Amino acid sequence: MAAPSPPTAPDPCNCSHTASPAGLDAIFSPQSVAVVGASNRPESVGRSVFKNIIDGDFSGTIYPVNLKARSVCGVRAYPSLSAIPDPVDLAVVIVPAAQTPAVAREAAAKGVRGLIVISAGFREVGPAGAAIERELEEICHAHHIRLIGPNCLGLINTDPEVRLNASFARRTANPGNIAFISQSGALCTAVLDFAAKKNMGFSKFISVGNKADIGELALIRHLHEDPQTKVIMMYVEELRHGFEFIETVREITGGANPTPILVIKSGRTAEGAQAASSHTGSIAGSESVYNALFQQAGVFRVQTIEELFDYALAFGNQPLPRSNRIAIITNAGGPGIIATDVTIHSGLQLAGFSPETTEALRRHLPSTANIHNPVDVIGDARSDRYRDALSAVLNDDNVDGVIFILTPQSMTEIEATAQVIPPLARASGKPVVASFMGLMDVSGGAEILARNGIPHYHFPETAARAMSALYRHAKWIQREHHREFEPKVDHPRARRIIDRALAREQRYLGEVEGNEILAAYGFPVLPARLATTPEEAAAAVNEFGPCAFKIVSPQIVHKSDVGGVRVGIATPEEAARVYGEMVRTVTRNRPDAEITGVYAQQMATAGVEVILGINRYRLFGPLLMFGLGGIFVEIFKDVSFRLAPIRYNGARFMVRSIQAYPMLAGARGAAPCDVEELEHCLLRLSALATDNPEIAELDINPLMVHAKGGGCSVADCRILLDPNRSCPKPSPGSESAAESR
Amino acid sequence: MAAPSPPTAPDPCNCSHTASPAGLDAIFSPQSVAVVGASNRPESVGRSVFKNIIDGDFSGTIYPVNLKARSVCGVRAYPSLSAIPDPVDLAVVIVPAAQTPAVAREAAAKGVRGLIVISAGFREVGPAGAAIERELEEICHAHHIRLIGPNCLGLINTDPEVRLNASFARRTANPGNIAFISQSGALCTAVLDFAAKKNMGFSKFISVGNKADIGELALIRHLHEDPQTKVIMMYVEELRHGFEFIETVREITGGANPTPILVIKSGRTAEGAQAASSHTGSIAGSESVYNALFQQAGVFRVQTIEELFDYALAFGNQPLPRSNRIAIITNAGGPGIIATDVTIHSGLQLAGFSPETTEALRRHLPSTANIHNPVDVIGDARSDRYRDALSAVLNDDNVDGVIFILTPQSMTEIEATAQVIPPLARASGKPVVASFMGLMDVSGGAEILARNGIPHYHFPETAARAMSALYRHAKWIQREHHREFEPKVDHPRARRIIDRALAREQRYLGEVEGNEILAAYGFPVLPARLATTPEEAAAAVNEFGPCAFKIVSPQIVHKSDVGGVRVGIATPEEAARVYGEMVRTVTRNRPDAEITGVYAQQMATAGVEVILGINRYRLFGPLLMFGLGGIFVEIFKDVSFRLAPIRYNGARFMVRSIQAYPMLAGARGAAPCDVEELEHCLLRLSALATDNPEIAELDINPLMVHAKGGGCSVADCRILLDPNRSCPKPSPGSESAAESR
Repeated sequence: MAAPSPPTAPDPCNCSHTASPAGLDAIFSPQSVAVVGASNRPESVGRSVFKNIIDGDFSGTIYPVNLKARSVCGVRAYPSLSAIPDPVDLAVVIVPAAQTPAVAREAAAKGVRGLIVISAGFREVGPAGAAIERELEEICHAHHIRLIGPNCLGLINTDPEVRLNASFARRTANPGNIAFISQSGALCTAVLDFAAKKNMGFSKFISVGNKADIGELALIRHLHEDPQTKVIMMYVEELRHGFEFIETVREITGGANPTPILVIKSGRTAEGAQAASSHTGSIAGSESVYNALFQQAGVFRVQTIEELFDYALAFGNQPLPRSNRIAIITNAGGPGIIATDVTIHSGLQLAGFSPETTEALRRHLPSTANIHNPVDVIGDARSDRYRDALSAVLNDDNVDGVIFILTPQSMTEIEATAQVIPPLARASGKPVVASFMGLMDVSGGAEILARNGIPHYHFPETAARAMSALYRHAKWIQREHHREFEPKVDHPRARRIIDRALAREQRYLGEVEGNEILAAYGFPVLPARLATTPEEAAAAVNEFGPCAFKIVSPQIVHKSDVGGVRVGIATPEEAARVYGEMVRTVTRNRPDAEITGVYAQQMATAGVEVILGINRYRLFGPLLMFGLGGIFVEIFKDVSFRLAPIRYNGARFMVRSIQAYPMLAGARGAAPCDVEELEHCLLRLSALATDNPEIAELDINPLMVHAKGGGCSVADCRILLDPNRSCPKPSPGSESAAESR
Repeated sequence: MAAPSPPTAPDPCNCSHTASPAGLDAIFSPQSVAVVGASNRPESVGRSVFKNIIDGDFSGTIYPVNLKARSVCGVRAYPSLSAIPDPVDLAVVIVPAAQTPAVAREAAAKGVRGLIVISAGFREVGPAGAAIERELEEICHAHHIRLIGPNCLGLINTDPEVRLNASFARRTANPGNIAFISQSGALCTAVLDFAAKKNMGFSKFISVGNKADIGELALIRHLHEDPQTKVIMMYVEELRHGFEFIETVREITGGANPTPILVIKSGRTAEGAQAASSHTGSIAGSESVYNALFQQAGVFRVQTIEELFDYALAFGNQPLPRSNRIAIITNAGGPGIIATDVTIHSGLQLAGFSPETTEALRRHLPSTANIHNPVDVIGDARSDRYRDALSAVLNDDNVDGVIFILTPQSMTEIEATAQVIPPLARASGKPVVASFMGLMDVSGGAEILARNGIPHYHFPETAARAMSALYRHAKWIQREHHREFEPKVDHPRARRIIDRALAREQRYLGEVEGNEILAAYGFPVLPARLATTPEEAAAAVNEFGPCAFKIVSPQIVHKSDVGGVRVGIATPEEAARVYGEMVRTVTRNRPDAEITGVYAQQMATAGVEVILGINRYRLFGPLLMFGLGGIFVEIFKDVSFRLAPIRYNGARFMVRSIQAYPMLAGARGAAPCDVEELEHCLLRLSALATDNPEIAELDINPLMVHAKGGGCSVADCRILLDPNRSCPKPSPGSESAAESR
């Protein structure tokens, strides 16, 4: 089920290297691999990589390339790529950075279609390295060679038809259905080590290094099509795609045949970001940008490496629940209570059982058992009692999933109980996660669970959280798509104002020009007029009713500081008088200022004050912000973010996800506000941000949201232009292409 | 350093069974133990317990009591306690619940001083069981026998002079310095299992069961004095002490020679609480009461069993940091970034190094290393480079603790690096926590760390969180004690009003009487007067300036609904007129109501509106609430709680811990409010709540907090009395003892 195409085109200036979905075959299913820099020297990376490919039982042919050695690990070696008599699909490169461009050129000549450059010494070491990296990347790009790295650990592909371990990892990956993409090589090593112990298997294991060519997005596209991959986990320090990432990944995580993606993104705090920048030369993205990006793409962000494992285990092995009504089965009260707490706390609810289920439990369990949820089969339960309870609750239509808890007690049959779960779980089509508590006594049972695809956690809390992760993903997939709203926009009108300002090197636009731009995008701007005489001021009040007057002068930004703001001017007489007073006062306070006139604008009627904003990021384009004004932004930081463009769903989310939403929905007996019109304003904001890359920052503060049906009014706005953002390429489909130049 | 005694006495009605600090010797260091119900039957609890004591190499003498058997496990048995020829200190009881009172009576006759009743079938099974439990408890109480249980797993004491495993746990505890108190027996089993695997040792391991006599408080007192115990961890479903728990435990966690206490309290959510109540018949406490209780007592609440372990490991082995400036040492960028993120996120900061440290790092590390914090010794670091880096940062006065990260890479010396840490850490007196990432390759290193008291975690995030836990405890111990403020109170005056209301069975007090009570406790109540004629109303305005008028009638609660509220009455003439109008309007709307008069109160001047409240809980006494009024309470739930009585520190905390505190401190250029006077009001509230148990609920809403130096004004209040709370015993030291009867 494809989503409709986005309402507005992506920021045309935000052009970055686009990774194509195709072309990774040479990387992931090569028939022949050359290892340039393969070596016999013990402990060298060149030897590690070559040994790993040999030991990994690669299904194709492998060619060591070494200038001097006749053979590497007994395999006939060649002095160069070109000396290899057969075609080569993929070259793994472990030579000093400075030599890699030459190797890439040779590879191009040889017809190689994929490179994995393991060598370090590129962007991460400074400008000189960055130049080499750019050269390498340009060669690859020109010759249609796809490139992993440089500065990476390599990759492991457990596909039984390929079996390629082209990495220098100490340990290999067992086959499985989890793909792992990591921006940190060292983390790869640690993750492989954990996974081995936990019996977790991987379909693909990719260290992306500096991502000169292939980054997360290209890999996600490829892995989504990979029949071996059921879930993707990623460690990310920075991403380099905004809009494209969202548009593509949203379909992968939440479209037909969805692939869940779990991410741990580090560099969250200011200090963390600094470390990231000294580490791989990443530009640390702001936290809110990344959160918006991941939410919009349906990527599940976790906070710790452990969660990455815990949730991948569940996603890799269990179906998603239809909804959030969970049953807990336990043989001990305490752990059942703890699991209940976490269950509720993570957005799940305890299922209420049908009378049939309750009756079945009553029949099978002793009288001291708890036949309500959480079901307590009591400490002396053997496997049959567990089986009866599990069978009963899985059969209940009110139950969407089960958390199964066992504590080792004297009568407990650990292995036999473990064997009860898999067939019942599979037959039900519902997710079951288990916690056999303890590390030693329960290990036999835990192994049976692992072998049979039942996620097993040491603690019931973790089991409950994993179930909640499954549910949240189900909710994302099932999300409702609301009817789109297409704002009517007069882009040429907005462009004229922006171009005029830029032509006179004006960066700051106050509300006179700001309102004109907003009006061009259909914002509910209050009637206003620039008055240049007392008579015109009087006429404005006559026409609009009570007005606010603000001085207009290119030299004056902070109008109220110089006596340039007056509100509530009710009559034409007052208007004429105030006009004169204001011009005199401002002239006295700022003799240097050239006064254009007085901006007379209708007073806004009552409403809830909200703030709408745009902030533009180099790699990600415009970030939209929404929140209630004043202290709610400044003290409570109660705002929501989305990267533009957004659709109706995005606007709804922005409005509904702030904590203060009840104030708009009509809390405390107040009348509900015109939320729909507010959502429309957010869609206008999105279009404005997307169409006009020169708008670096914009604040509508406040927008008054009136009672339901009453619409909204822009009460004040300011815009900051960035002349360098003015785009050489017109926005596709924009009528104003010629005009705007 | 003992804290000053509390400013006001505890709620005298909140009397529960007081556990004395003494008297646990028979439980923890018995010379002789009888096992009543010891059995030869395989898999029986009576056999398990007896075998555990024998196998545990108990240092004293053990006597099986069994009606029929000649011997149990080869040890000479006796048909009854009284048949034992020697004195018995402690009896472990595993007989059906109904027989336990008889056993207790026999134990009393025999001079036994401690009982551990393992048997189930008491309070947890319903009223009949509860009656037996009460009987058992009364017998013990009457004969000064201390009792653990009933319905528990027993206890384990690893003290080398005692060595008593009086439990039916499958597995015993290794000696160590962690004490564990658990309200769930099943959790005990799982915890022992984990601990065995993690090489964690326990000083005492106590399953408290139904806590008929000995509960957490008595045990905490005992364990604080126990030289083997360095940290206490608890699993709690409900506590039965409020004030006493706080007063005692605060000194234990934060006084001289502090013992840190970690708690996991379950039954957090509504559903969780329900499960708790069906489990051990606990009365589920409200979440905010428990949070206040733990915070006031300096007890560290964790959310998961895993955190309990993680933090206990740190507290048991490492000193507390002086402050929060942490250094991170890593051999890999990614994990260093992740650790940095969590470090900052958990309230720690990255230490800035002194020039000497930076110089030392520059000298010892390769040029590609990061010599700033987080220190990256680079992937090829061997143990010497790690040692040099660790030594340099530990020597820096700007560093309060170190997080040490290792990822296994090809050159990494795992064991040798582990050996580097303990001597340097010990010599520095600063806490060091480590994460050797991976489960298998690093196990040798992890074992060296464990043996040498360096807390080791699989993930750097966990290491950072554990360090943060140490810091938060250090901060609690070092907290500043502010000068106390003793509110001047006229308790007899307040009592007279309460007694008068109760005498006429009035439960709800409006602001006429409410203000009188508040005034008696020194609250800044606005001048007001009950006017019964238009002339008196006019006189009030004449005297006080602009007033608010509110109708006074015992039948009318919602005054504004019947036209009984008018504000801003500025002149005596207006006052006389409004008086007449109001009486007429109210009479028309509520002909049934008897009108006492009109309450004329000075209008409050501008200020920030806050709410102060009291809500009383059966077991814990009065809970004080503070927050900003209106939406801040209702939508943001931005409030703070403390159990009364509080001291100045508590009042400060309440005011400062709400998110909106900047609004009081003077955010956005506004003038700061009179926070000091607000704190005084909270102390008055505490005194009022503590002195007058009949006040079930109280709201001061709003209290206007004026600009600094301008004080506060009570603008409205309501009080709900509970006649059943009226206390037979006067508050100690209260002058009104006689009068208030």
